[in-house]
Amino acid sequence: MGDKLYLGVDVGGTYTKLGLVNDARRIVSRHTIPSQGFSDKAFFARELLAALSFLLSECGGYLSQIKVAGIGLPGPVDAERGIVLSLTNIAKWNNFGLVSYLKRFFSFPVFIENDANCMALAESQLGAARGASHVICLTLGTGVGGGLILEKKIYRGPFFLGGEVGHVPVALSGKHCPCGGEACLERYVGNGAITARIKKEFARTLSLEEVSSLARRGDRKAIKIWDDMGRYIGFALSGVVNVLNPEVIVVGGGVSLAGDVLMRPIKRSLCKHVMKHLKGKVKVKRALLGNDAGVLGAALLAKEKIE
Amino acid sequence: MGDKLYLGVDVGGTYTKLGLVNDARRIVSRHTIPSQGFSDKAFFARELLAALSFLLSECGGYLSQIKVAGIGLPGPVDAERGIVLSLTNIAKWNNFGLVSYLKRFFSFPVFIENDANCMALAESQLGAARGASHVICLTLGTGVGGGLILEKKIYRGPFFLGGEVGHVPVALSGKHCPCGGEACLERYVGNGAITARIKKEFARTLSLEEVSSLARRGDRKAIKIWDDMGRYIGFALSGVVNVLNPEVIVVGGGVSLAGDVLMRPIKRSLCKHVMKHLKGKVKVKRALLGNDAGVLGAALLAKEKIE
Repeated sequence: MGDKLYLGVDVGGTYTKLGLVNDARRIVSRHTIPSQGFSDKAFFARELLAALSFLLSECGGYLSQIKVAGIGLPGPVDAERGIVLSLTNIAKWNNFGLVSYLKRFFSFPVFIENDANCMALAESQLGAARGASHVICLTLGTGVGGGLILEKKIYRGPFFLGGEVGHVPVALSGKHCPCGGEACLERYVGNGAITARIKKEFARTLSLEEVSSLARRGDRKAIKIWDDMGRYIGFALSGVVNVLNPEVIVVGGGVSLAGDVLMRPIKRSLCKHVMKHLKGKVKVKRALLGNDAGVLGAALLAKEKIE
Repeated sequence: MGDKLYLGVDVGGTYTKLGLVNDARRIVSRHTIPSQGFSDKAFFARELLAALSFLLSECGGYLSQIKVAGIGLPGPVDAERGIVLSLTNIAKWNNFGLVSYLKRFFSFPVFIENDANCMALAESQLGAARGASHVICLTLGTGVGGGLILEKKIYRGPFFLGGEVGHVPVALSGKHCPCGGEACLERYVGNGAITARIKKEFARTLSLEEVSSLARRGDRKAIKIWDDMGRYIGFALSGVVNVLNPEVIVVGGGVSLAGDVLMRPIKRSLCKHVMKHLKGKVKVKRALLGNDAGVLGAALLAKEKIE
């Protein structure tokens, strides 16, 4: 019998990543499968089992080594009762008792969690915010996800929607958001909003990478786009910062790959709005764990649950 | 020997309120003294002792009945180490080890806390948010104070500035704030801002009561003033609500006496911006404990500390 292993699953709208994590908190085996067809719950379970067998053969492990699994999901979940509350990208999973459903297929306990919370936990334990006890994690992608670590623990809130920094409003009036709010940060800096802005400014389609690279080479229009994005992000964060005073803000997700051209205006805007006693104390850092954050966080969370 | 008693002190910029609280969490004796001269620490200690003797004779109590004291202060304090970090209204108290200073004068332990945190604790245990475990407390007065209760405990944050809802920014650019931020809620809805707005609209000075009463009688200008105030307050709260999902928001302080003419636009603005899964779940209520909240909260907090 080898080391204990912990299964981490990061269910995304398009792809689902899986990994086996050891006691040294390293991923020893990883796999990615398409998320298509997951609305069919039995199919989802079969795909998990198939992926699990792949992971085990990949690292030469035994099923008996796996002590627990954590599954991160792209929407609000009732982590205590193991119920998926609602998912935008996977139909028919609303109010779905996923944990009790999966029970029959696995020899180890299964826990579920919101994916941004998993990422926040991983970055706060192993990544950009290591050592900090109060952390805000932001993922900039199609949507803007948020996860909150307070006193080293995931903050879920009484309605399991804690940490939704993407839905902090950035204007008194503005675009409606599918979340039910208005003028949410996500409407202004999500992938779709940036793409629309690029089209308007350049009168053609450019990738985010191209616009980042243009900005680095001094292109005014490109710089202005990232400046505006950063201003909104920093503004939304500053309200949360003045209320929660986190030690570290971790910025991740595909859009964050823009790098300094985006991070600088975020920091500038944040510095403009935060209280003087917090200036210099609250650090803004880019996520360190990249695509692994979700899998690691889900596995670490599950590991904590059984310890 | 009678019941156990707990001393609560609520130090304000102008007046300081004191009360003896019993095990039934009722104030059995109360007193108010001017805060003038408190920069002189020895004078502050003498005033406390004099007030304490007044409180005891008032309720026929004995010093030996008092088990602990809690002092609420209008600024950030390091509650763990008993240090006042900074006070706007009392000079020379910055980084002052108040608890260790007072030790020589009292036969019981003394604890300090931020006053808005005391109010939040009292309202969540005995007042408008009784029974809730996640509460945001807002005090609308000269400044806009904020206190946060998460999982039934005061949230202080790693830098002791937790809960400062008054310093959530409400515009990307705007008025500078003495806190070091820009466009803070307090700049838009603090007493000074409302008074300036009244002068502008009515071309003369009217009290807040007069404007509330005008609004209740349908005066357009008065209604517009409260609508705008409510819009800003609701906007600032909604970002915090989408991140923390409190069950109850308690609105107190002198300005909140405006009543429904202010509460209605706050609720409207909040409802516009919060996520649909939270609509109807997050209640907005007026504070119930009024002037007693600070004294009660300080005493309750101190009581918890020794239990």
